[in-house]
Amino acid sequence: MDNKLMLMIPGPTPVPEPVLLAQAKHTIGHRSGEFSEIFAEVTANLKWLHQTQNDVLTLAASGTGAMEAGIINFLSAGDRVLVGSNGKFGERWGLVAEAYGLEVDWIKAEWGKPLDVSEFVSKLEADTEKTIKAVIVTHSETSSGVLNDLEAIAKVTNAHGALVIADAVTSLGATSVPVDEWGLDVVGSGSQKGYMMPPGLGFVSVSEKAWGAYEKATLPRFYFDLGKYRKSAAKDTTPYTPPVNLFFGLQVALQMMKKEGLEGIFTRHDRHRRAVRAAMVALNLPLLGADECSSPAVTAVMPSSVEAEQIRSVMKKRFDIILAGGQDHLKGKIFRMGHLGFVCDRDILNGIAALEATLMELGADGFSPGSGVAAAASQL
Amino acid sequence: MDNKLMLMIPGPTPVPEPVLLAQAKHTIGHRSGEFSEIFAEVTANLKWLHQTQNDVLTLAASGTGAMEAGIINFLSAGDRVLVGSNGKFGERWGLVAEAYGLEVDWIKAEWGKPLDVSEFVSKLEADTEKTIKAVIVTHSETSSGVLNDLEAIAKVTNAHGALVIADAVTSLGATSVPVDEWGLDVVGSGSQKGYMMPPGLGFVSVSEKAWGAYEKATLPRFYFDLGKYRKSAAKDTTPYTPPVNLFFGLQVALQMMKKEGLEGIFTRHDRHRRAVRAAMVALNLPLLGADECSSPAVTAVMPSSVEAEQIRSVMKKRFDIILAGGQDHLKGKIFRMGHLGFVCDRDILNGIAALEATLMELGADGFSPGSGVAAAASQL
Repeated sequence: MDNKLMLMIPGPTPVPEPVLLAQAKHTIGHRSGEFSEIFAEVTANLKWLHQTQNDVLTLAASGTGAMEAGIINFLSAGDRVLVGSNGKFGERWGLVAEAYGLEVDWIKAEWGKPLDVSEFVSKLEADTEKTIKAVIVTHSETSSGVLNDLEAIAKVTNAHGALVIADAVTSLGATSVPVDEWGLDVVGSGSQKGYMMPPGLGFVSVSEKAWGAYEKATLPRFYFDLGKYRKSAAKDTTPYTPPVNLFFGLQVALQMMKKEGLEGIFTRHDRHRRAVRAAMVALNLPLLGADECSSPAVTAVMPSSVEAEQIRSVMKKRFDIILAGGQDHLKGKIFRMGHLGFVCDRDILNGIAALEATLMELGADGFSPGSGVAAAASQL
Repeated sequence: MDNKLMLMIPGPTPVPEPVLLAQAKHTIGHRSGEFSEIFAEVTANLKWLHQTQNDVLTLAASGTGAMEAGIINFLSAGDRVLVGSNGKFGERWGLVAEAYGLEVDWIKAEWGKPLDVSEFVSKLEADTEKTIKAVIVTHSETSSGVLNDLEAIAKVTNAHGALVIADAVTSLGATSVPVDEWGLDVVGSGSQKGYMMPPGLGFVSVSEKAWGAYEKATLPRFYFDLGKYRKSAAKDTTPYTPPVNLFFGLQVALQMMKKEGLEGIFTRHDRHRRAVRAAMVALNLPLLGADECSSPAVTAVMPSSVEAEQIRSVMKKRFDIILAGGQDHLKGKIFRMGHLGFVCDRDILNGIAALEATLMELGADGFSPGSGVAAAASQL
């Protein structure tokens, strides 16, 4: 049905009406006092969301652009970096590093499994000559729904002295990412995830320690030169023309997030994570990852008695719900249900109820109709 | 007065209501058939606007990001490039080139004067060993309101064999930029100018010859790797999450542009250029550049009997019209009136009438009230 689309993908996520409408306001000049006021408010609220005193810089770019900026500003060609990879995005940051001539030391885990912290410990402890300059790690691996133990990895990295560069694209705004407490030097994220915004803005938080590395880093950069963004931000502006109307939306989205409060946001996402997982178990749909390392943003499911792509197709055609498929070697093997951002309890029941009806239509076996919704409801 | 702002800066420019409202539609998944349809339509219309069969790629970035992509994808460290600089933006592209280790050979002209084509001829003809790999030139220099002779510079560059990399940020959609006819290998632009869109999207057109250079180019890039955008565009999609809601707006803006037609758009901008310049002369306000090289997008004025910044201040406070100031060494010495994008004849009369009233309020001498509007009207 037209205009009845419900996004249950891990980004873009549903956008609240006040945020959508804010974007339709007349564009203003980006060198005006009015824009600077918005910029200042947004930046303060971004720091609140990141639980940090560090700079949080906003770029006109996707999350990939933000992460690239977060890598190339603090390193020089030939620098050794440890890259954790247990999915599409961890792998991507290693490819970014390689594209810039960094020496990548991979720590890999199977998609669906968490990164093994002890491997970071071994590599970092063995590096007595401090050749490792940074550890690049994805917090919530969007491709598999796995939440890596960023806190523990940051801890060992801080003990070593290397920079912690974290991808929090689908964790910021969905679960606590206490940047200062965990000692995260660089954190990248994107607007179309927990921020309840359309895509188009990327965010990078930068610690004083990272700024120290910036001074010595020689990888080439211009548009993504974060020093320029920092200098401009001190005057409540940006070095290049910012996406003004996306800032209008972001201003409203962050106001809404502040009103709900960090605790409210995080418990809501955790509740939805538990509800979705309980429903999948009840429906006899195997989960890709274990509960202990499950993302609050997205749940990956590997159905056995029916095809994942059939489920996605029926969910879309019959119920106007969009689920994500698998990426790369998991294409066609899993579906991913996103539950981050502007998602309420009703949406979860909605998604699970439609999933049950879809399984019925596809003649899936091994489940009792109604059991998924009941299981989800028990967690809400 | 609240919400009565009228933008007369060279970007962001006024945005039509249907474009603003399109951005407020619910975000859709970027890997959907629906998005691919929009992407395909937008890409076809971008090619129409560029008058080209070349690829035209859309990035989540400002015009600076688009230009950086247009430079770094086709060159390798140490390559020699000729950079034309007669303003802030020409200078910027040289700085981008230097940041990436290219050997920059500057051709400079005073801000307000056009680049001298004969200097390009001399340098290119002297380069019998073909060490110059690209010529980077700004078509409409936004900082000074000067239109460089891109056609002539492209012609001598094509004869030499180097790539023509053009900044058409404030010329595309304001004056004819026939990419194929002029042999422009790479053309960068941004949404908040002639496109009648808010900022947030950058565009790069790429010729087959440039793709040939891409194969051999070794400057590092990832987010801005245009080969990835080309590969995705062949499947009507993007390598990274695109700013979906900005695409909604762009779709509508390009439909409006197609309806007006290239000839209509270009004659309208030319009419406004002439009207604004005639008015400034009538008002005894010295123009920074000569008529022969004047931009259809923005007019720079260097007032003598009153301060440029006072004019801007009164225009804003009394009439809610935003003019741009000067940049760098022209700060405080000039004001710039933008007249590109969604601007009708009435807007020009409006701007000139308010400027007259401002001059009266400031006690400027040497002009007859009414003469500016009369002069503008005579050109409309």
